[in-house]
Amino acid sequence: MTIQTRRTLTDDERIDWLRLSHTGNVGPITFFALLQRYGSAGAALAELPRLAEKAGRVRTPTVPAAADIKREVDRTARLGARHIAACEPDYPEALAAIEDAPPVITAGKNIALFDRPSVAIVGARNASLNGRRIAAKLAKELGEAGLVVVSGLARGIDTEAHKAALEYGTIAVIAGGIDVVYPQENTALQAAIFDTGCVVSETKLGTEPMARHFPRRNRIISGIAPGVIVVEAAKHSGSLITARMALEQGREVFAVPGSPLDPRSAGANGLIRDGATLTETADDVLRVFGSELMRRRTSIAPPDISLSTVASADAEVEGARRLVMDALSPTPVAVDELVRDCQVSLPVVMTILLELELSGRLERQPGQRVSLIS
Amino acid sequence: MTIQTRRTLTDDERIDWLRLSHTGNVGPITFFALLQRYGSAGAALAELPRLAEKAGRVRTPTVPAAADIKREVDRTARLGARHIAACEPDYPEALAAIEDAPPVITAGKNIALFDRPSVAIVGARNASLNGRRIAAKLAKELGEAGLVVVSGLARGIDTEAHKAALEYGTIAVIAGGIDVVYPQENTALQAAIFDTGCVVSETKLGTEPMARHFPRRNRIISGIAPGVIVVEAAKHSGSLITARMALEQGREVFAVPGSPLDPRSAGANGLIRDGATLTETADDVLRVFGSELMRRRTSIAPPDISLSTVASADAEVEGARRLVMDALSPTPVAVDELVRDCQVSLPVVMTILLELELSGRLERQPGQRVSLIS
Repeated sequence: MTIQTRRTLTDDERIDWLRLSHTGNVGPITFFALLQRYGSAGAALAELPRLAEKAGRVRTPTVPAAADIKREVDRTARLGARHIAACEPDYPEALAAIEDAPPVITAGKNIALFDRPSVAIVGARNASLNGRRIAAKLAKELGEAGLVVVSGLARGIDTEAHKAALEYGTIAVIAGGIDVVYPQENTALQAAIFDTGCVVSETKLGTEPMARHFPRRNRIISGIAPGVIVVEAAKHSGSLITARMALEQGREVFAVPGSPLDPRSAGANGLIRDGATLTETADDVLRVFGSELMRRRTSIAPPDISLSTVASADAEVEGARRLVMDALSPTPVAVDELVRDCQVSLPVVMTILLELELSGRLERQPGQRVSLIS
Repeated sequence: MTIQTRRTLTDDERIDWLRLSHTGNVGPITFFALLQRYGSAGAALAELPRLAEKAGRVRTPTVPAAADIKREVDRTARLGARHIAACEPDYPEALAAIEDAPPVITAGKNIALFDRPSVAIVGARNASLNGRRIAAKLAKELGEAGLVVVSGLARGIDTEAHKAALEYGTIAVIAGGIDVVYPQENTALQAAIFDTGCVVSETKLGTEPMARHFPRRNRIISGIAPGVIVVEAAKHSGSLITARMALEQGREVFAVPGSPLDPRSAGANGLIRDGATLTETADDVLRVFGSELMRRRTSIAPPDISLSTVASADAEVEGARRLVMDALSPTPVAVDELVRDCQVSLPVVMTILLELELSGRLERQPGQRVSLIS
């Protein structure tokens, strides 16, 4: 994302941010593109109907009512949590730098943990006893060394990591609303983390976590922490998705090796083969990464997202719309390639893509790629 | 070593090689230095007393009698094995290229295995059941893929690797004489390998393996095979020494990862951290190394050993002896450094070192370093 100046929003501005970010078809990338183009969330909200219409409105984006969002904000405050927008100083700085940062997170209570160096520990839900022991040992030792352990409060590795790190400060990023407990067996743990650590979510209160929420949640885990440790992870597991996201986000990836005979080690071993740091003890993390973690915590530069250049003359957009539409298909294509192929400027292409997305006809894919929804 | 032309020796020449290589204080490096200087093992034998005397004979090298060596050759032949000198075409080519190649090996019966691509599998004697299963699976699959498995016939990993590879051809490099079985429980296995595969040793018949023989044996394992797989290995284990030698010899090192909670995995995990290829299946070896193994088998170039330049005027040696002696101490020093420090030419320094070694006053250390025996 492309927030240049960090400042605390007024309550009304924050409500605009929430309304826009919870508008149908508006994903994080589109959110920041709109913000860039119109200067504020409020101005973007006003332009939404016109934009969707231009692209041949399939579905009109549904914007949540200001009153509903205000109620959400009040209920969140009563729980002891609050909403933090990506441009605000209290928002985790490293998270703000990722391409698809959540425009607004809900967090509570101890948001001061965002200012401390952190490392994520993730792994298998069906972890072995040994895997769980390793996760707990790593979490405890890294906590003692002053790092905040970030994880996802899932069964297995996540749970062990949070428990062991609880007394040092731990951040749980969850897929549902911060008032929804999942899995049920972690009711007490989630409450304890909420009281002394921090629970983070980008979904509304009352949201039950669904399968599609988890990969999105994982990007926040690796977004907050400059390093991710994978303890046990099968092939094609969620933990591996987190590790891949971490690499895309320029994070350091650590993996704990295991026997080739245990399928729960295949993912971590594969990561090591691909260049992750082989990790046996907390020292392996601290050695490679100790001071680095401290340094990165405050110096991660926002990536140069080309979406920041969204701004273009309407006439030019009109002329190019058909060209870009023809170049698109259900097969994802890189935005760069579109620009080259259509011989149209990047701002114009971005504007057309924005309109298409808002009208529900375009889907954003990882790595600045887009596809038509057929 | 520096053998330039490969040719089959006469029986008498081979007996000279054996006599010189079994002479006290004559290690492999000294052997080849003498060969270079005097042109043949026979000529070197004739010069030995004079050389040792020059350096202030502490112990006169004991040269085995020709008749004794002849008896050894005959007994070896009756067992179905034979002696092969490092300059002979039947000697393993990759082994001939290492700095401290055994001047003569005893091998039998199936020395044709030396011509096939090979890979070594080594690991812990006290291997876990899982480690043994992995070793067997790797050995079988690599055997099926056409590779000869080389190992050390020790308990644990070595034993499993040999057993699984037996039907495809396997080479056992042992620390004692080829007629001595160690450990006893491998009596049948050693006999089976001798019948269908190949047993290799550099020690005389009847030699009981002793602790000091094992590291020397390990250099032959990694010397024969262009790749070494370490399955389970604790810190400071013999398998790690083999892996380190393999790296020094320019071999490819593979290591099977394991849980940080199992001390038998610490060595292999450490190797991976240091750059060894993480190995879970035979494919990991074949992928990285398959055609490479084939290629290297016939193209490993002998290193440029500076010992080949041993040749110098006696007067010059006389003048420099005191200088070099003063520069030496029980702390190992690099030969290069001696040359720089003493401002004496390399051939002169090498000659002086040779004399000192023959008189039992100097010890060769790994990496072209030498120390005085105090």
